[in-house]
Amino acid sequence: MVSLTPNPSFSLTIRLQLPNTAGMLAPVVQAIADAGGNIGQIDLIEQSRKTLIRDITVDAFSTEHAGAIVEAVKALTDIVILDVYDRTFTLHRGGKISVQSKIPLKSQADLAMAYTPGVGRICTAIAENPHEVYSLTIKSNTVAIVTDGSAVLGLGNLGATGALPVMEGKAMLFKEFAGVDAFPICLATQDTDAIVETVKNIAPVFGGINLEDISAPRCFEIEARLQRELDIPIFHDDQHGTAIVSLAALMNALKLVKKSIDEIQIVINGAGAAGLAIARLLRKAGVNTIILCDSRGILSTTRPDLNPQKQEFAVEQSGSLADAMVGADVFMGVSAPGVVTPAMIKAMARDPIVFAMANPIPEIQPELVATDVAVMATGRSDYPNQINNVLAFPGIFRGALDCRAKTMTTTMFLEAASAIASLVNTTDLDKEHIIPSVFDERVAPTVASAVQRAARTDGVADD
Amino acid sequence: MVSLTPNPSFSLTIRLQLPNTAGMLAPVVQAIADAGGNIGQIDLIEQSRKTLIRDITVDAFSTEHAGAIVEAVKALTDIVILDVYDRTFTLHRGGKISVQSKIPLKSQADLAMAYTPGVGRICTAIAENPHEVYSLTIKSNTVAIVTDGSAVLGLGNLGATGALPVMEGKAMLFKEFAGVDAFPICLATQDTDAIVETVKNIAPVFGGINLEDISAPRCFEIEARLQRELDIPIFHDDQHGTAIVSLAALMNALKLVKKSIDEIQIVINGAGAAGLAIARLLRKAGVNTIILCDSRGILSTTRPDLNPQKQEFAVEQSGSLADAMVGADVFMGVSAPGVVTPAMIKAMARDPIVFAMANPIPEIQPELVATDVAVMATGRSDYPNQINNVLAFPGIFRGALDCRAKTMTTTMFLEAASAIASLVNTTDLDKEHIIPSVFDERVAPTVASAVQRAARTDGVADD
Repeated sequence: MVSLTPNPSFSLTIRLQLPNTAGMLAPVVQAIADAGGNIGQIDLIEQSRKTLIRDITVDAFSTEHAGAIVEAVKALTDIVILDVYDRTFTLHRGGKISVQSKIPLKSQADLAMAYTPGVGRICTAIAENPHEVYSLTIKSNTVAIVTDGSAVLGLGNLGATGALPVMEGKAMLFKEFAGVDAFPICLATQDTDAIVETVKNIAPVFGGINLEDISAPRCFEIEARLQRELDIPIFHDDQHGTAIVSLAALMNALKLVKKSIDEIQIVINGAGAAGLAIARLLRKAGVNTIILCDSRGILSTTRPDLNPQKQEFAVEQSGSLADAMVGADVFMGVSAPGVVTPAMIKAMARDPIVFAMANPIPEIQPELVATDVAVMATGRSDYPNQINNVLAFPGIFRGALDCRAKTMTTTMFLEAASAIASLVNTTDLDKEHIIPSVFDERVAPTVASAVQRAARTDGVADD
Repeated sequence: MVSLTPNPSFSLTIRLQLPNTAGMLAPVVQAIADAGGNIGQIDLIEQSRKTLIRDITVDAFSTEHAGAIVEAVKALTDIVILDVYDRTFTLHRGGKISVQSKIPLKSQADLAMAYTPGVGRICTAIAENPHEVYSLTIKSNTVAIVTDGSAVLGLGNLGATGALPVMEGKAMLFKEFAGVDAFPICLATQDTDAIVETVKNIAPVFGGINLEDISAPRCFEIEARLQRELDIPIFHDDQHGTAIVSLAALMNALKLVKKSIDEIQIVINGAGAAGLAIARLLRKAGVNTIILCDSRGILSTTRPDLNPQKQEFAVEQSGSLADAMVGADVFMGVSAPGVVTPAMIKAMARDPIVFAMANPIPEIQPELVATDVAVMATGRSDYPNQINNVLAFPGIFRGALDCRAKTMTTTMFLEAASAIASLVNTTDLDKEHIIPSVFDERVAPTVASAVQRAARTDGVADD
C-alpha cells in the first residue's frame, strides 16, 4: 500500500489549534509526512496571543489512509483537531453545475421580450420553419449526457442517482473545455427499448447526445438505434472517446519506439464497450494484429460464450491474458485493477507500450514497472500520459455542433485522433509526454476543426 | 388597431445615418410618433464631421405596425436607414440559458476531485445511501420544465421545438426569481402513456417537475399519474400557477369592492387546464357560485358533450357566455382574444371585477372598458395588475425543494395565494395595484415560506 501515490481525490483539510509558540508546526508536518500524507496548502485562519488556528490540506491515497493521518496528528500533544473535512465531498455538495440566464430580467420590457408576450413570436417562427430551432434556441449548443448508471466508471452498476456526480462532472468538462452546454439525463431504467424511446422523446432540445457509462453489449444497440432514428449526432464516450485518445497516444508512442502501426501486435484486455471500440478504431487505423481478452482470457474462435461483438475479434489462438501478452508490442487495458503483473510486462516484446487505463485503479500500478516499459500511460490525472477522454469529447461535439453534423462517422474519429496526436511536436515527444495536457487550450479547437472537416468530407454536415 | 398599446414584444432598433446638423433628429422622432411608435432609448453610435449614426429603439404593437414605422422613417429626406433589427429575435438568438460549472477546473487537482478518480467516492456514497443524492448532486435545486408543446401560450399545438423558447424563458424566471436551476424538457411525443413513462425515466436528476403547456384533458391524467408514481412534487403551472395568482388577485380585488368571497358569482370562460384549476381552487377557497363556460357556452348539465372534468362544474343554467355574465360579480377569462364585448361587461353586477387573462391578446382590451370596471387585470406585463404565474411558481418550487416536499397539496396552493395577496398592504391597495409586482423581491421568499409551512402541516415535507 505504501507504494501508492497520495492524490487529490482523497484530499482532506484538517483544522488545528496550536499553541502560539515557535516550532509548533514542525511536529505536525513531520507526523503527517511519517504517515505518508502529502501536504498541500497551509492556511493561517486565526491568531490570538495564546493560540493559532491553521487549515492543513493533505492528500492521502485512500479513505483509510486519510483516517490514519488524522490519528497521527491527534496523537500529538498540545495540538487540538477542531475539524476534519473531506475536500472532495465538500466540492460536490449541492452539485457542481447550475443553469444560468444569459440575459438579465430586470424590467417589464425584459420580461415582455424574453417571455410573454414577445416569446410567442419566436415560437411561431420555429413552428413555421422548424430549422429555426437551431438559431433561436439553445439546441445548437446543447448536449444531453445520457446514462442508465449501469457501468459507472470502474465501479459497476450504481444506478441513475449513483451516476449523477459523474454526469455533472462531464457537463463541467464540456463547458470548461469547449463551451458546450451539457445537461445530465440519468435514466431510471436499464431496459434497452425504454432507453431508446426516452432519449428519442427528449431529443428535441438537444443538438447532440453523449451516451455515458452504459454497459455492454446494450450500449451498442442503443447507440446504433438512436443514430438511425435521430438526426443529431450520438456519441458513446466510453467507446469512442476512449478509442480516439488511445489511438492518439498510440500514434505518438509508436514514434518513440520506432515501430509501425501495421506491424505491431496489440493485446487489449477488456472486451466491453471501450475494449471493442478501441479494437475497431485501431483496425480502421491500420493495426493488423489485435488479441482481445476478457476476464476468461483470449477471445478465441474455440470459445462458445462470445456475443456477436466479441466474435468479431475472435482469433485462432487461445489462452490467458498472460499468454496473449507474450511478445506483444502494446498492451491496452480497459478492464480491472491489478490484473497485470510485472512478469507479464517483462514477457512483452522489446520497448513495450503499456496503457493501463482501468479507473480509478489501473491494471498495474506504474510504480511497479517503471523501468520495464518504454511508454506507460494510465487513465488517471495524477500520473503522466493520462488517456483522458476530455481530450476528445469536448472538441468532437464542438465540431459536430458547429457544422450541425447529423451523425458521427469513423472518419471524424480518426481525424480527431490525428489532431490530438499532432499537438505533441517531435521535439517535445517523450516517454512521459505522448499526449497533450488536458489543459492545453489548443486541443478542443484543433479537434473541433478536424472533426468539422471530416464531417464535410463525409457529407454529414448540415451547415 | 390604433387603440392597441405599443409594447416591447414588438420592439425594433433602427440604425440611422443623419446629417450632422442641428434639428435633424426632430423630424425622425415626429415621423415615428405620427406612425404610432413608442420611442425608447436613442443612442449615438458614431459621429463624423458630416454625419451622425444613431440607434433608435421603438416599440410597435404588431409586426405590420413595425414595418409601417420603418417605412415612415424611410420616407424622410436626408435620412439613411443602415439597419433595422427586431430586438426580440435578437434577444432569443442562440437561446437564453446556459449550463455553468460552479467550480473552476484549472488544475489536475481540480479534475481529480471534481471528476475521476475522486468522483467515484461520491458515486459510491450515493449508491450506498440513495438519500445522499439530495446533498451531493444538483437534484435538490433542480426542476424539469416538461412540455409536449400541445398548448403553447395561447398559440396552440406548436410541438416540442416550437415550445422551447417558452421553456427557456421559464427556466430564466426560475433562476432569476427563486434561484432554482430549471432545465427544459420538450417531448417529441404527445401520447399520455409515453409522456408519463419518459418523465418517470428522467426523474432521478430532478427535485421537482413543472409541467407546462400540455393541453387538457391529457394534462390532468399526466399530472395525477406522475404524482402517484414519483416521490417528487409535480406542478402543472398552467393549472395551479394561474389558479393561485388569480385567487390572490381576487382576494385583494374583493377588498376594494367590499364583497365577500362566499357571496360572489364568478364566471370563468375557458374550461381547459387553467379554467378548471381556477374553478377548483376558488371552490376550496370558499366561492359558492361558479359558472364555467367553454367555446360552446355555459357548462350546463343538459349538455351531452362534457368530459368528466367539465361535468364536475356543470350547472342547471344554460346559454351563452353573454348569458352567464349577466349579473356576475367577477369574470375570469383564460380563453381566447376578444371574446368579451363591452356590452357583456356592462351587464355584470355593480363594481365588476374582470380578469382577462388570455395570452398574448386578452378577452377584451382594457382600453375598451376602462371606465366600466371596478378592477381590471390581464395576463400581460404591459398593463396594470398582471396575473403572472411568475408570482407563484418560483416561490412554490423554492418552498417545496427546501423542505423536500414529496408532493404538492391544495393547502400549499391556498397558502401561496394568501401569501401573494398579503404583500399588497391596505394603504397601497388600489384598482391598478391588487397584486405585487413580479419584481417585488419579497414575493418568492414569502411564497416559499408559506408553502414550506403548509407542506409540514400536511405532512408531505421530508426535510
